[in-house]
Amino acid sequence: MTVLDGKKVSNEIKDEIAVVVQKMKAKGEGIPHLAAVIVGEDGASLTYVGSKVRACARVGFDSTLIRLADDITEQALLETIAGLNNNDAIDGFIVQLPLPKHIDTQKILLAVDPKKDVDGFHPENFGKLALDMETFIPATPFGIMELIKRYNIETSGKHTVVIGRSHIVGRPISILMSRKGNPGDSTVTLTHSRTKNLSEITKTADIIISALGIPEFLTSDMVKEGVVIIDVGITRVPDLDHPKGYVIKGDVAYQGLMAKASYMTPVPGGVGPMTIAMLLQNTLLARQRRGAL
Amino acid sequence: MTVLDGKKVSNEIKDEIAVVVQKMKAKGEGIPHLAAVIVGEDGASLTYVGSKVRACARVGFDSTLIRLADDITEQALLETIAGLNNNDAIDGFIVQLPLPKHIDTQKILLAVDPKKDVDGFHPENFGKLALDMETFIPATPFGIMELIKRYNIETSGKHTVVIGRSHIVGRPISILMSRKGNPGDSTVTLTHSRTKNLSEITKTADIIISALGIPEFLTSDMVKEGVVIIDVGITRVPDLDHPKGYVIKGDVAYQGLMAKASYMTPVPGGVGPMTIAMLLQNTLLARQRRGAL
Repeated sequence: MTVLDGKKVSNEIKDEIAVVVQKMKAKGEGIPHLAAVIVGEDGASLTYVGSKVRACARVGFDSTLIRLADDITEQALLETIAGLNNNDAIDGFIVQLPLPKHIDTQKILLAVDPKKDVDGFHPENFGKLALDMETFIPATPFGIMELIKRYNIETSGKHTVVIGRSHIVGRPISILMSRKGNPGDSTVTLTHSRTKNLSEITKTADIIISALGIPEFLTSDMVKEGVVIIDVGITRVPDLDHPKGYVIKGDVAYQGLMAKASYMTPVPGGVGPMTIAMLLQNTLLARQRRGAL
Repeated sequence: MTVLDGKKVSNEIKDEIAVVVQKMKAKGEGIPHLAAVIVGEDGASLTYVGSKVRACARVGFDSTLIRLADDITEQALLETIAGLNNNDAIDGFIVQLPLPKHIDTQKILLAVDPKKDVDGFHPENFGKLALDMETFIPATPFGIMELIKRYNIETSGKHTVVIGRSHIVGRPISILMSRKGNPGDSTVTLTHSRTKNLSEITKTADIIISALGIPEFLTSDMVKEGVVIIDVGITRVPDLDHPKGYVIKGDVAYQGLMAKASYMTPVPGGVGPMTIAMLLQNTLLARQRRGAL
């Protein structure tokens, strides 16, 4: 079994981006600048945003972190977004989800200028993805595609089974894997909570992409020999023996599948680090597209 | 076997729309107004557009047909579209495809104001469809969903196999059938030209939606007993015994499947008429949304 080493590949991508940024600097061009907006004090969200800001520093991007109190009004948040849309110094920005319940997430995502929407969550960008047009691909599915590409995994004509139909992973990766191109051209089955006989379906899969969020859900008896497994699940499972009080588990019973899978992502160290690398990639793209205008 | 009678259902929908229009008139409200732009003299395109204009008259909508020469410049067509976007008398409009080769179709579709895009082809509207937001659903997949709904066909947890990944049918219907809701909640497999062992997949389908364009491709040996078949294929097959010189054939070998399918759309008289009814429905929606502003 070959480990799909997202940590290693994401570092390669970051190195490549850093080289491009160096060249930009050397030419006296403006360097990419990512802003991140976070509302409230959620621990996991702060951790994610912190990683994104550190990743910017690592590749030489400018970054701005905007922390807002969790009782901010929707109107004030919309004004913050309008400010970022109009701020010529910012190439791209993200609004860390989830938002507090009193704020309409859909309204917020619609307010982001599609040209600066490096998360790819604006419907115009999502529609472009589905219609094979140039866009910002959401970072997690983009990271999965890149990992598949860099390990030269054959996808054309293969049966890819996606578990979970979320807007940020399942839905977009099901579209990307079935689009024309390489990677792509897969026959894709999208499964979800209403799917019956899931294991009958996963047993026919050449490639399984699981974004369910149930720890160690996918077991050896559910797959066929030689399957490629991409594990997008990240769940904190309480563990008093661990200094943090929890461990991170994926959707996949990794140990039990090592003998059967041909390629597999570990958790952590698989899709997670790729996500951040692709956010940087999108920010670089945003900079380059603005520069080209 | 129950025939999914698109002609009958589309007439019911048109009657319902006509009643709504009558009420609008009685209240002195503006009635829906659809414009259709056609470039060139393609026979099939002229036939389609003619049907759409006639359907407007049938339900009491205003309609405007804009015929442009096939050597029109891209710029002039863009100006026509800008005019329709800014014309307050027009609620929605369509640009009949295909366009001549010297015109960039993508650029044209992007120029349509999403609020007037009753074909649902603008990426913003397509993205909203994929992200479960209110939008204009493209008429053909919308018609399929409506047909399934009005015949009370169970879709939740069923295995739906879609054949063909086009932007106007296969891609959107695969998304709609797998979204939450009724109809919806299907496990969906999207198949296409690169799919291997297609008949192995169609044999496991509870519902097959075929939009391939190969006459009588789907045969009895490729399906299981009780399957629901939606045939979106429309191909003109030369037939010298027929006054028109051709007959219309679907993707499905209809006669041979009558004993095995539980529900099936005929061609013609299935999905085709539903498509026009749903274009009217979208135009009514456009009028109502504008009125509500």
